[in-house]
Amino acid sequence: MKIEIVTIGDELLLGFTIDTNAAHLARELAAIGVEITHRSSVGDNSADIADAVGQAIERTGAVITTGGLGPTADDMTKPAIAQLFGRAMHRDEEIIESMKARWTRLKRTGAFPESNIAQAMIPDGAEILPNRHGSAPGIWLEDERGRWVAMLPGVPREMRGLLADELLPRIRARVEKWSGADIPVIRSRTLRTTGIAESALADLLGDLAKGVDGMGLAFLPSVESVDLRLTVRGLPSTEADTKLDAAVLKLRNTAGRYVYGEEGADLAEIVLSACRKTGLRIAVAESCTGGMLGERLTAIPGSSDVFLGGVIAYDNFVKRKLLGVSDADLEEHGAVSEEVATTMASSVRAMLGADIGVAITGVAGPGGGTATKPVGMVWVALDGIATEARCLRLFGTRDEVRQRAAQAALDMIRRTLIRD
Amino acid sequence: MKIEIVTIGDELLLGFTIDTNAAHLARELAAIGVEITHRSSVGDNSADIADAVGQAIERTGAVITTGGLGPTADDMTKPAIAQLFGRAMHRDEEIIESMKARWTRLKRTGAFPESNIAQAMIPDGAEILPNRHGSAPGIWLEDERGRWVAMLPGVPREMRGLLADELLPRIRARVEKWSGADIPVIRSRTLRTTGIAESALADLLGDLAKGVDGMGLAFLPSVESVDLRLTVRGLPSTEADTKLDAAVLKLRNTAGRYVYGEEGADLAEIVLSACRKTGLRIAVAESCTGGMLGERLTAIPGSSDVFLGGVIAYDNFVKRKLLGVSDADLEEHGAVSEEVATTMASSVRAMLGADIGVAITGVAGPGGGTATKPVGMVWVALDGIATEARCLRLFGTRDEVRQRAAQAALDMIRRTLIRD
Repeated sequence: MKIEIVTIGDELLLGFTIDTNAAHLARELAAIGVEITHRSSVGDNSADIADAVGQAIERTGAVITTGGLGPTADDMTKPAIAQLFGRAMHRDEEIIESMKARWTRLKRTGAFPESNIAQAMIPDGAEILPNRHGSAPGIWLEDERGRWVAMLPGVPREMRGLLADELLPRIRARVEKWSGADIPVIRSRTLRTTGIAESALADLLGDLAKGVDGMGLAFLPSVESVDLRLTVRGLPSTEADTKLDAAVLKLRNTAGRYVYGEEGADLAEIVLSACRKTGLRIAVAESCTGGMLGERLTAIPGSSDVFLGGVIAYDNFVKRKLLGVSDADLEEHGAVSEEVATTMASSVRAMLGADIGVAITGVAGPGGGTATKPVGMVWVALDGIATEARCLRLFGTRDEVRQRAAQAALDMIRRTLIRD
Repeated sequence: MKIEIVTIGDELLLGFTIDTNAAHLARELAAIGVEITHRSSVGDNSADIADAVGQAIERTGAVITTGGLGPTADDMTKPAIAQLFGRAMHRDEEIIESMKARWTRLKRTGAFPESNIAQAMIPDGAEILPNRHGSAPGIWLEDERGRWVAMLPGVPREMRGLLADELLPRIRARVEKWSGADIPVIRSRTLRTTGIAESALADLLGDLAKGVDGMGLAFLPSVESVDLRLTVRGLPSTEADTKLDAAVLKLRNTAGRYVYGEEGADLAEIVLSACRKTGLRIAVAESCTGGMLGERLTAIPGSSDVFLGGVIAYDNFVKRKLLGVSDADLEEHGAVSEEVATTMASSVRAMLGADIGVAITGVAGPGGGTATKPVGMVWVALDGIATEARCLRLFGTRDEVRQRAAQAALDMIRRTLIRD
């Protein structure tokens, strides 16, 4: 089955917004055996929308649009496509009721805004795709020849929710009806590694770096990880999965302790799960990361049984007052030193009665670097289940140095737990 | 002048690559007065490339492509477009010489790969756009009616280099030849608002929501802000700027205290600057945000003269032990309450000797909500330059509730400083 995507919005054409919706749609659809053959973007302009959707309908008879469903005057996806299909628009009272209920539930103040009502205008004969993630519902419009357009909102969170809740199940049902269960799919698996550079990882993998069992292997470096992506095309899903399982095992055996998970795995979640198993509790003391490590741990729902909290010791005064770092250590070794990192980790652990204390102190930049303590130099220390301190030399922008430091602190906990 | 963009590559249609090239091209071109009216993406397939480029040529007579210029079999942009223009291909010896020179200069090992020679095949009558940033040159192909296609490589670094070095100067010269020095440009200004929903903001703006002085106004909601973007088209740059200045003033006068800055302004940076002016120092106490507020403040370089640090009081034990929250308050009112938020703010301020203490405690979800304290209920309290506590009802995912809470805490500081 072939589908085309039309993303709508002046901000896309002006380059203010990078079109992440199109990529997300493409990945999700490829995974159920749908091929995207063409994608286009047009501005908030009725004629251009009708033109792009009309051509796409002619080519494939199946189109997904994003954007232009909101309450304001620049949202014209529905009327443009209604006109293309020769349909009038009507006001849907159910949508209005559900928007009003949402307004009340969220305890917004004031009267229900009249401008919301534009979101309740839908083309005659259209089906509503309910939006549990925002106010603008999605729309499914189909003609008598079975050609259809699915209109999704442009806000990525809402688009993703509606796609998963409403649109993918519909499309999957159509694909299976046409092609049976053995549709050839495009499937990928991703292994996440951390604590090793891309080139060193390639060396470690040797021949596997060029591909595994005839499948391509892509190296995807990000700030926190180097991901390894295997892709198989043209096999039915069960065969594709079997082949991927075998290849993932080979990669895991070779990359060893650098692998911390698969797909979107979050190292914070992995650390929390490992601690939860043995009832260990974590406290943090953060200088240059300023709360980022705590933020990553608490981003995971249910982290409260493992993560106690900690101290953001950004100013040296806080390091002294709350964490008992001595003036002598600060003067002799400086705030970015093994001595200070170690004291921060042990103090926060003792003060909060945690099993694991972890501390970060470093030079995040862009200013503040010296010859002996350059930008990117970060000390990470752990106290409790083990005692360890490491000096890292991280590269990148201020934000990247901080992200890499928080990731390294989490990885220090993970590796300690693996060792035990 | 209108131009269309066609980005080429299976990776784009499969969603493995997010199309950042298209956004970059659009921004650079808009700034010299070129309007992008349509953008499309096709896979590595001759017929689809010819189809997309052919339609774009029919519509505007001016097309930029990216991708498909490399040395491998799936690179078919040049032959597809040559065929569309009815041109044969020939081998360009100058390109081969320059690629060989580059090979030697980069001290690559082994023989010069024959596969590179595909990159030296160009359509008859085409002009070469030399690529100083990689091996595949860009191509300019123009027909007898003056309609043209510029083909750029897909690697973002090479694309950007070639665009700046070769393509923008050519296009600017054409625009100026047609339109004189007073080229009509597309310019935008963005105002950032927070603390108000998109629909309520539209109501507040009244008629301005539909457009200001004939300029379009786009509402761009994100987790932390609703941005208002004004775009003016078709005026010379000085006139455009004057018109935008006047319109921005109108919007600021109407949206008032909800406006916190322009363009990419970060509320944390604005709060830090405002505090720096009067020598105020900030301490934070965070429960559900777990460090996110500290992280945002320390993300700004040079924040150390304003931000001292604080306490991540995720577990109630930490609230009691470090922030003096009483058992009685926790039992009677619960951790998410005005009493606890207020104590957290005043304690952290006193303990660290700060001028401003700010605290956040709430139910981030997805679990943990009750009938009286549902998911999204967050107390934010401020102590020091003023005493204030507010109960927010935030919506969205766990992460969104946390981001909105941190933003609301920053905005509470900002509004207090404005009032003073």
